[in-house]
Amino acid sequence: MKQSIFFNQIVKQAATDEVSVNAKFFIQGGYADKLMSGVYTILPLGLRVLKKIENIIREEVVAAGGQELLMPSLHPKENWVQTGRWDTVDDLFRFVSHYSKIELALGPTHEEVISPLVKKFNLSYKNLPLYLFQFQTKFRDEKRAKSGLLRGREFIMKDLYSFHSDEKDMDDYYEKMKVHYKNIFNRCGIGEKTYITYASGGSFSKYSHEYQTVTGAGEDLIYICDNCKTAVNKEIIGEHPPAGGACPQCGNKDLKEEKSVEVGNIFKLKDKFSQPFDLTYADKDGGKKPVVMGCYGIGLQRLMGAVAEVKSDGKSIVWPREIAPFKIHLIPLNLKLESVAEKTREIYESLSAVWKNEVLLDDRDLSAGEKFAEADFVGAPYRVIVSEKTLKQDSVEVQMKESGKTELVEIGKLVEFLS
Amino acid sequence: MKQSIFFNQIVKQAATDEVSVNAKFFIQGGYADKLMSGVYTILPLGLRVLKKIENIIREEVVAAGGQELLMPSLHPKENWVQTGRWDTVDDLFRFVSHYSKIELALGPTHEEVISPLVKKFNLSYKNLPLYLFQFQTKFRDEKRAKSGLLRGREFIMKDLYSFHSDEKDMDDYYEKMKVHYKNIFNRCGIGEKTYITYASGGSFSKYSHEYQTVTGAGEDLIYICDNCKTAVNKEIIGEHPPAGGACPQCGNKDLKEEKSVEVGNIFKLKDKFSQPFDLTYADKDGGKKPVVMGCYGIGLQRLMGAVAEVKSDGKSIVWPREIAPFKIHLIPLNLKLESVAEKTREIYESLSAVWKNEVLLDDRDLSAGEKFAEADFVGAPYRVIVSEKTLKQDSVEVQMKESGKTELVEIGKLVEFLS
Repeated sequence: MKQSIFFNQIVKQAATDEVSVNAKFFIQGGYADKLMSGVYTILPLGLRVLKKIENIIREEVVAAGGQELLMPSLHPKENWVQTGRWDTVDDLFRFVSHYSKIELALGPTHEEVISPLVKKFNLSYKNLPLYLFQFQTKFRDEKRAKSGLLRGREFIMKDLYSFHSDEKDMDDYYEKMKVHYKNIFNRCGIGEKTYITYASGGSFSKYSHEYQTVTGAGEDLIYICDNCKTAVNKEIIGEHPPAGGACPQCGNKDLKEEKSVEVGNIFKLKDKFSQPFDLTYADKDGGKKPVVMGCYGIGLQRLMGAVAEVKSDGKSIVWPREIAPFKIHLIPLNLKLESVAEKTREIYESLSAVWKNEVLLDDRDLSAGEKFAEADFVGAPYRVIVSEKTLKQDSVEVQMKESGKTELVEIGKLVEFLS
Repeated sequence: MKQSIFFNQIVKQAATDEVSVNAKFFIQGGYADKLMSGVYTILPLGLRVLKKIENIIREEVVAAGGQELLMPSLHPKENWVQTGRWDTVDDLFRFVSHYSKIELALGPTHEEVISPLVKKFNLSYKNLPLYLFQFQTKFRDEKRAKSGLLRGREFIMKDLYSFHSDEKDMDDYYEKMKVHYKNIFNRCGIGEKTYITYASGGSFSKYSHEYQTVTGAGEDLIYICDNCKTAVNKEIIGEHPPAGGACPQCGNKDLKEEKSVEVGNIFKLKDKFSQPFDLTYADKDGGKKPVVMGCYGIGLQRLMGAVAEVKSDGKSIVWPREIAPFKIHLIPLNLKLESVAEKTREIYESLSAVWKNEVLLDDRDLSAGEKFAEADFVGAPYRVIVSEKTLKQDSVEVQMKESGKTELVEIGKLVEFLS
């Protein structure tokens, strides 16, 4: 991809109405554009990152048996009345169809759709367990939306719903998903900063679990146990206080308070939604039993925002390898020199032959300073600098941004070096 | 993929409240579920088709220079007031945010978002032409939604917007897109039935072009010229009647009336949206000039619905090769026989090694009749039947659904045969 064509550029003015680091970074770096409070367009540079995050999540969920479907955003009122949530969910967008006069909601989550959907398939024990997920746009009428991509009124969520014949099977799957969630946050580069966190289980479960990433931009407060790398959300201290203020897992009392953002959650729904929708299955003996459910969410823009909060200073970033918008940023320093232009063409072709869409070439007639300032926003793990000086040694400079190291690499060995 | 696990099954009762062939087929075949009028969940089987359609379109649009982004569904009222469309677009969902009291619309199209977005980037002539597209969920408060997936209140659209320095450049790109649209409909298997159709250009252009697929389920009426494979939409007969009722392209007067459904459209917007948003670019001489725009839409569910209308009878389908949910349907006839079970395992492994997720194995203990009835709904181009009888010749029966031919193929040569 050539930068002269690529629809991306540093927005010269800082995004002054944004208070969060991630929003400033994403807007100035050309990853996103703010349409209104809590509502962002994801620009081509940002969409490359978001799609990679999506693919990591999809791989992990499919590895755990997930089957993908796509549910609608428009929900009929009756489904939400059935669970008693029409009037109780504060951030539900509600409105009326002009023509049909039907009352509608925009789905902030999909238990009210997937439970009656699965019911239609007349499950037997042979169909269980069943794991259904989607990447789908959620809408939430947020009271405050001032944290950039961390708290959107509209965002893509991966929501997975699991259906089981009993609680034991749900519990086993819940533990399995913990492993995959850990993989997801590791692969997105925030594993170190992300803690599985005891949170409120609501009225029907003692605990649920959140995944909380430590960042000053977070709106949550957690207490971290460094012993077992677990945390407790402050919201449950009053509700189910860990005995003596200790870690509920290992008893450690030396907990550390940190601000954090919730990047995912897993929840044992049990029969909370199968009851109101009469979602049952036919057991071996032919009897009807309630289906036991779990649900597992990750907001994609929020995860991307959390990575930016952890990895960027608002002006630059080094993206984790698996989600970087480009693997290689090829930057020739003076394209007016025929020697530089020619070698750059050669190198671009040889790198593109191997890494296809993963090579970004800055083919513009700009100063080195301008190019580097933008490259800091792009944050590719490898930056390859083509200059007259190093070409004399038939070499280019390779900056490995993760390690901070720089090496002079012979052009003939460049593909091998980057492999 | 094993059918015992795959979340799909024939819905035993016909979808009696549906009037269209595509809705009956999709619901009974387990491709989609109706949440309410005009609002469907796309089930795993259907999503496999929809994603393949999406990828075909993406390939063609990227080949034409398109860069992908993702705009929001929530639009602020002011953007629609600016173009005068807040009060004039009948099918706009409008509502008020509970907390902020802001008036919002759900985007039925995105000129009102992309025009001010692109304006922020202070375009110069060097940035043009520019082609931006998305796959994004559209909402339309449809008066009537009785045609299944052909007319949804919520659906995914590929919308591409092109930005040019002058009309000549827009005209050239418009012609280029016609080629890619032809490719798309060919690859989706409805090229033969799909006509580029002269339609109303609105107040600022004599014609726009629609792509109309001939089907009795269509709500449009077109007049087809078999000479040049072009059509005219009836809606413009009164407005810009083809001279003497003749084909506007070749003058042929022998036109044939057909019912059809619009599966795509391309539109020369010119400065219709750049004017209200003052979207200009800096020309070579430094002067400001209005950006010239085009837009190009395809509704994905509608396209999928049109294929079903053309290719299915409500009980069976033969999917066009590139969009079939599975390439190969492997159907053993009596898995209780150890010889059949063992050979089926071997064949499934060898086929899956080559075609990974493209092989569907019916590993269930059902009668041949039940399996074939479901297989007719799945519509894979190749059906491989494993039975005791043919195993005696170390062979399987391969049904090639497109040609209707059946061959006995040696197991050792099966991969080669299917390649």
